[in-house]
Amino acid sequence: MRIVLHEVGPRDGLQAEKSVVDTGTKIRWIERLIASGIDVIQVGSFVHPTKVPQMADTEVLFRWFQAPERKPRTTVLSALVLNERGLERGLACGVDMFCMGVSASETHSLRNTGMGIDEATRRILAMAATAVGEGKGVQLSVQSAFGCGHEGKIEPAKVLAMVRRFVEAGFARISLADTAGFAHPAQVEYLFGSLREMDPELDLACHFHDTWGMGMANVWAALKSGVTYFESSFAGLGGCPFTTITSGNVCTEDLVHMFHLSGLLPHVDVGPILEVSREAEKLFDRALPGRLLRTGPMPSGGSFPASAPGLEKDRAR
Amino acid sequence: MRIVLHEVGPRDGLQAEKSVVDTGTKIRWIERLIASGIDVIQVGSFVHPTKVPQMADTEVLFRWFQAPERKPRTTVLSALVLNERGLERGLACGVDMFCMGVSASETHSLRNTGMGIDEATRRILAMAATAVGEGKGVQLSVQSAFGCGHEGKIEPAKVLAMVRRFVEAGFARISLADTAGFAHPAQVEYLFGSLREMDPELDLACHFHDTWGMGMANVWAALKSGVTYFESSFAGLGGCPFTTITSGNVCTEDLVHMFHLSGLLPHVDVGPILEVSREAEKLFDRALPGRLLRTGPMPSGGSFPASAPGLEKDRAR
Repeated sequence: MRIVLHEVGPRDGLQAEKSVVDTGTKIRWIERLIASGIDVIQVGSFVHPTKVPQMADTEVLFRWFQAPERKPRTTVLSALVLNERGLERGLACGVDMFCMGVSASETHSLRNTGMGIDEATRRILAMAATAVGEGKGVQLSVQSAFGCGHEGKIEPAKVLAMVRRFVEAGFARISLADTAGFAHPAQVEYLFGSLREMDPELDLACHFHDTWGMGMANVWAALKSGVTYFESSFAGLGGCPFTTITSGNVCTEDLVHMFHLSGLLPHVDVGPILEVSREAEKLFDRALPGRLLRTGPMPSGGSFPASAPGLEKDRAR
Repeated sequence: MRIVLHEVGPRDGLQAEKSVVDTGTKIRWIERLIASGIDVIQVGSFVHPTKVPQMADTEVLFRWFQAPERKPRTTVLSALVLNERGLERGLACGVDMFCMGVSASETHSLRNTGMGIDEATRRILAMAATAVGEGKGVQLSVQSAFGCGHEGKIEPAKVLAMVRRFVEAGFARISLADTAGFAHPAQVEYLFGSLREMDPELDLACHFHDTWGMGMANVWAALKSGVTYFESSFAGLGGCPFTTITSGNVCTEDLVHMFHLSGLLPHVDVGPILEVSREAEKLFDRALPGRLLRTGPMPSGGSFPASAPGLEKDRAR
């Protein structure tokens, strides 16, 4: 079983910033993230540029990295799409993998898309089928799977039923997204454990925000529950529903650092990621939440216990 | 199986601060920590007052809480002792439970105590036997069990052999302390899993620092490996070997918050702990690492998934 890292900073991270990062800087950062060996990078999303100006250059970025001399050899470039128009734009500019989601909260779904869960699901499944027909990768996610800022508790049975619908439509790469940051480890174990029972062949992905300081514990609980795809943002950038809260997504370099100590993600180099985070900290002119930004990696990393017997042989590639 | 919380802030936390907290403030804080329902509170340590002035009032504190009208009904008051003189002082002023440890690093042990591991172990075992003879509780710990700032890697076999010696001498409450903050979850699972295999009846305790952002993940990994005693500091105060690093111990209120979401530690109230942390932040006049200090507990906590099936029935009291 191979652990896969999906960097969502250029999308989920930068979209949450007030200032718009210029295209040249984004290219430099994405180049460095590619150089680190990260498996999948979410370059942007296809939304209306006046609505989310931070994502206005998504097409330019995909076209840039489509050029034969720049196309990454192994890294997959993904994009978030919200509707058919976005899918069309993404197909036209060379997106490798499309990420699409439906909220498990009726209120959240209605407010964000104007559609209830059922209608949104039908629409997303049709879009996903189109993308697959064009030979593209697809990841389907349940958003607000662990709780919702509007509705509060989300019943696990509801999340499981949504995933079942995705699976029955033929999709196997499934992400549960902690859109608002409510996930806790016991819940992570329960939900992902239930999905593994439902279908042991699913490629399970997780997307956590570190709002209440449980991000890394949730990542560990997910790993132990059979999740193999991990979404995170360099520097811990990312959106957050509460303005007083300092943390966004789980921080990529912190996650890689923890996984390296377990013998996991051996193909990812933490150095270039940390460089991007340091530049982001300079650009945004404030301390960002990632811990390695403060501490650097563990001193003489290799001399500390580098792995625990039993884990790396099951999981490392 | 009952989960037990051991608050070490008044000792490990305050000892790391440059300023000395006055006795009246300490009393008020400890009173509030007792009111929260915390099981064990480490009030201080018996060291020379000129060496560690922050701990100079440890006897005064124990005498204060020994008075019949103030003695906590259920909370156990513990102290750290380093030598026979400290034990004597602790026995004289009413300590309920003694915490004693030996470093798994020969270098660290020599620097801290002037004795190698073997000699230090013999001495601690004799002191522990004296304390038990006086009807006191004892917790024996292996310090630097997960790595050492001087030596780097600590062989797991060494840690296990040290614990075996404690167990063969008749002691069952065993703590592994991440003195320098090097622990990572796979290592936590391996070491505590090995201890459970060695003797399933041990009362296992863990003590983590959040240096590289893995504190909460380590706590979760420890819980899943059969650890039932959790040591932490209010506000995430605590010593740390690297001056650039912002975090100390795992933060008590963050840990309680996470455990509550799993149905664990139902007897502990997060409110009074958070009050103490807020006062500490004011007193020390800087932002402290605890996350709940920034966010507060999850909104309408009860309305979010409060527990995961299967866990609370095994673990809550």
